Amino acid sequence: MKELVYLDNAASTRMDERVLEAMNPYFFDMYAVATSEFGYSSGIEAKDALDEARKVLASHLNGSSTEMVFTSGSTESSNLAVKGVARSLAKKGNHLIISKIEDFPVLYSARTLEKEGFVVTYLNVDREGLVDVEQLKESITNKTVLVSIQHANQEIGTLQDIEAIARTCKEKNVLFHTDATHTFTRVPLDVKKVPVDLVTLSPHTIHGPKGIGALYVREGTPLTKLMDGGFQEFNMRGGLENIPGAVGFAKAVELVTPEENEQLKKMRDRIITRILTEVPDTVLNGHRERRTPQNANVTFHYVEGESITLHLDMRSFAVSTGSACFSRSLEASHVIMGIGGNHERAHGSVRFTFGRYNTMEDVDAVVGAVSEVVGELRKISPLGKSEEV
Amino acid sequence: MKELVYLDNAASTRMDERVLEAMNPYFFDMYAVATSEFGYSSGIEAKDALDEARKVLASHLNGSSTEMVFTSGSTESSNLAVKGVARSLAKKGNHLIISKIEDFPVLYSARTLEKEGFVVTYLNVDREGLVDVEQLKESITNKTVLVSIQHANQEIGTLQDIEAIARTCKEKNVLFHTDATHTFTRVPLDVKKVPVDLVTLSPHTIHGPKGIGALYVREGTPLTKLMDGGFQEFNMRGGLENIPGAVGFAKAVELVTPEENEQLKKMRDRIITRILTEVPDTVLNGHRERRTPQNANVTFHYVEGESITLHLDMRSFAVSTGSACFSRSLEASHVIMGIGGNHERAHGSVRFTFGRYNTMEDVDAVVGAVSEVVGELRKISPLGKSEEV
Repeated sequence: MKELVYLDNAASTRMDERVLEAMNPYFFDMYAVATSEFGYSSGIEAKDALDEARKVLASHLNGSSTEMVFTSGSTESSNLAVKGVARSLAKKGNHLIISKIEDFPVLYSARTLEKEGFVVTYLNVDREGLVDVEQLKESITNKTVLVSIQHANQEIGTLQDIEAIARTCKEKNVLFHTDATHTFTRVPLDVKKVPVDLVTLSPHTIHGPKGIGALYVREGTPLTKLMDGGFQEFNMRGGLENIPGAVGFAKAVELVTPEENEQLKKMRDRIITRILTEVPDTVLNGHRERRTPQNANVTFHYVEGESITLHLDMRSFAVSTGSACFSRSLEASHVIMGIGGNHERAHGSVRFTFGRYNTMEDVDAVVGAVSEVVGELRKISPLGKSEEV
Repeated sequence: MKELVYLDNAASTRMDERVLEAMNPYFFDMYAVATSEFGYSSGIEAKDALDEARKVLASHLNGSSTEMVFTSGSTESSNLAVKGVARSLAKKGNHLIISKIEDFPVLYSARTLEKEGFVVTYLNVDREGLVDVEQLKESITNKTVLVSIQHANQEIGTLQDIEAIARTCKEKNVLFHTDATHTFTRVPLDVKKVPVDLVTLSPHTIHGPKGIGALYVREGTPLTKLMDGGFQEFNMRGGLENIPGAVGFAKAVELVTPEENEQLKKMRDRIITRILTEVPDTVLNGHRERRTPQNANVTFHYVEGESITLHLDMRSFAVSTGSACFSRSLEASHVIMGIGGNHERAHGSVRFTFGRYNTMEDVDAVVGAVSEVVGELRKISPLGKSEEV
């Protein structure tokens, strides 16, 4: 059987062996909890490891390690940020602003807050997925307590102008959260330059472990706990610390290099150029330049993305379609619809996301396979060429 | 340096090597997300592994695998259970009942719900830590939506009469949650016999991985999500599935044997008997028989538990005191206070919890060390013998 070519690194990545090596001592030698530091010395070792992991993450954002809160993953981080700020400031105001194309943790946290009495503005994005900063500015009222706009989109990879957005929020004295799940270590973010208050971080897209994530919380940001329990994580998140996870996260961060990111960009650019020029009736989803290094997303007109992924799977290529990576439904992607696409464009979209273990040969191989598969599917497609696209 | 004798297995355990072996393939070979099953076949492998892990956990409770929800740990499980049921049934009623000696996730979830308008009854326990089932029955009103009483206590190990409590709730038509963090696989619980609706489970006390936990949710139990995001975990918990964690949890469950639990009981009984007979002015905290196999908790009068743990640490024994394992404060344990202890009794308490890697030699060694340490500390203790205890 042909070896799997995995091009769905935005959903999950193969862990790097060096990450497991770094975690290993904390499974078997230093397994005490960090909060036992007052009781015995192995708790101090545990706390040191945790502090060091915080430092590694914080330094990548140019923040302080006391501003880094470990969570169970990016879903929890975004829930904590959005619900935590809103619930903490409920007496001050009941208005939130998010973009229409946020990932589910932010989107559904906002919907939960609506049930609690909050009013949410869902900002439109343009055809490339960009929020209009002027529109954001006009949407902020004296009741607005939080703006949450992603750094990059989970499906189409579009990078927002995070600095302009953050400055706008800062000027209006409104807290700003960004989900940086798909950009952390891949696209620089400096919290000294960009006045963002909360940043969702995760290692699951950079060959780190599952079950761990982090939230950058700028000092002084009001935050109601999501997870009640002990006083861990500067009293912002109760629960036994996952020290192997934190150490593995830090190691995953350290392993990402600028060269690797350059290589991802080359693979991304090659697949985009080749598909758009070699496969007829295709359109790029997302912005051509302002996108994450690892993401390419293309709509193949007149065919279902679902069919493409299944046929590619038979040829041992793993790619994803629509928002299927998080949804069990076959609903049209809210992201493609959000950029002004119709159902046909949404259903025909395929996401290719690259990681450390991909090569330029993978790119060429998948382009060849996609070209064949799409050609075959179009022959039997019930979707006529005449349909409005 | 003398090798560490670790007797704090209720806080954290050394992971079993066989657990890591079981997790390994899911780091490096089968790393797809389970929800990508519609896209490509490696998502099906991932889903199969997750389903199998659910089945292992569920079968230990005699429940169904569709009733098993993975979380990030016991803290999240208890938060989801207590807040999830309360928020879901807020229109039906606003009254909760918990015991005074619940662990922090339940205790502080209840306090958060008080801020949301709920009224909480904190049931007293007797001098051995037992809830009075008659008192529980009398406390239930037509506004009561949930009773949450732990299976065993985190500090003193007392096992509640979970069957009588569950039957009482069932008769009164009130949902019942129990935190079984310290009993799962150590003390049998059969959800077909005991009508409990939600059970908090964790592998961190049985040599499993960190960053994973589970909540048993009886079919049909209303539950508002704590973690908004995707539709994972039967739409009860959004977030990328931690498949290596789930597989490791299941492996940890499978590795616990009745023989091991018998051995833990023998160590527990030996340490209790030897300390109470050989060290003067000591008292057992918790019930003599109705306690978890792995827990011994003793107050050494006229000395601080804090000093005992520090001195034992210098001799390479790791034990814990009061509720220090979860608290950074030096507040008196709410558990010892809850069983009618005073501050002196609370501060002089030391918890010894046993695990797979302890031996009878450890027991004898720690008894010898404790005996010496307590003798020395008492010579310099400012706490007079005459003080009321």
